[in-house]
Amino acid sequence: MQLNKFTDYALRILMYVAQPRDLPYTIAELAERLEVSQNHAMKIVHFMAKQNWLITTRGKGGGVRLNPDTLKRQLGQIVRILQRDNQIVECNDPPCVLRYGCGLKGILDQAMEQFYASLDQYILGDVIQPVQGHFSLQSPINLINL
Amino acid sequence: MQLNKFTDYALRILMYVAQPRDLPYTIAELAERLEVSQNHAMKIVHFMAKQNWLITTRGKGGGVRLNPDTLKRQLGQIVRILQRDNQIVECNDPPCVLRYGCGLKGILDQAMEQFYASLDQYILGDVIQPVQGHFSLQSPINLINL
Repeated sequence: MQLNKFTDYALRILMYVAQPRDLPYTIAELAERLEVSQNHAMKIVHFMAKQNWLITTRGKGGGVRLNPDTLKRQLGQIVRILQRDNQIVECNDPPCVLRYGCGLKGILDQAMEQFYASLDQYILGDVIQPVQGHFSLQSPINLINL
Repeated sequence: MQLNKFTDYALRILMYVAQPRDLPYTIAELAERLEVSQNHAMKIVHFMAKQNWLITTRGKGGGVRLNPDTLKRQLGQIVRILQRDNQIVECNDPPCVLRYGCGLKGILDQAMEQFYASLDQYILGDVIQPVQGHFSLQSPINLINL
């Protein structure tokens, strides 16, 4: 079981931009730091801006900020929305030979509900660890370069 | 969230070979019916034979059968074993920039435990629906061809 890439990187972006600082974050910085293409970063940021989880501003000095209300959102709700309509298994495309007599899909969906319920015990703010200044997001080698 | 392909197709193979019949199932038939390469089918069957979930016999008239004890195994245990050491997110390869201050991995792992616990309410036998003769695994077009 894995989070799909869209959900995975969306969560990383949320956690990254949750670190407070004066300047907004740029797509280029998010793509570089999280090691994802700018195209993917932009697609994910756009989706989350439509959800109102991120605030985006254009032009000079523009970029991406976290909407602070997002810190209070339940993690299970965030992951559900990021999952969009992805299913845990694909029964129909291509059509699975077992689809006329299979009890597995319903049981897996029920288990996913338990997964989301467990995540819903937490809010986004719970996964952002206390930050000692700005440097906790820097890998040790970047501390040396600074 | 998706089952990884190995786990997904392993479960389909288990459900497929759980349908009782006189002749064992062949890798070629499993690959064709489940629309997976023979290479993948063989790898998955080999893994499950090592777990003693399947019994494989060589030579003329040989093939794959379900070990009937497998029907009594808890689904969560089966999925855990099929997952091998795959993690729900990959924090280290490549190294995630957030790994020094991230609370997400532990929370996701806890949610996975709830997922497995939910599956453990069921055994493999619960996902095999009652079969009306041999034909319930046939798609309607194959019924016409027969």
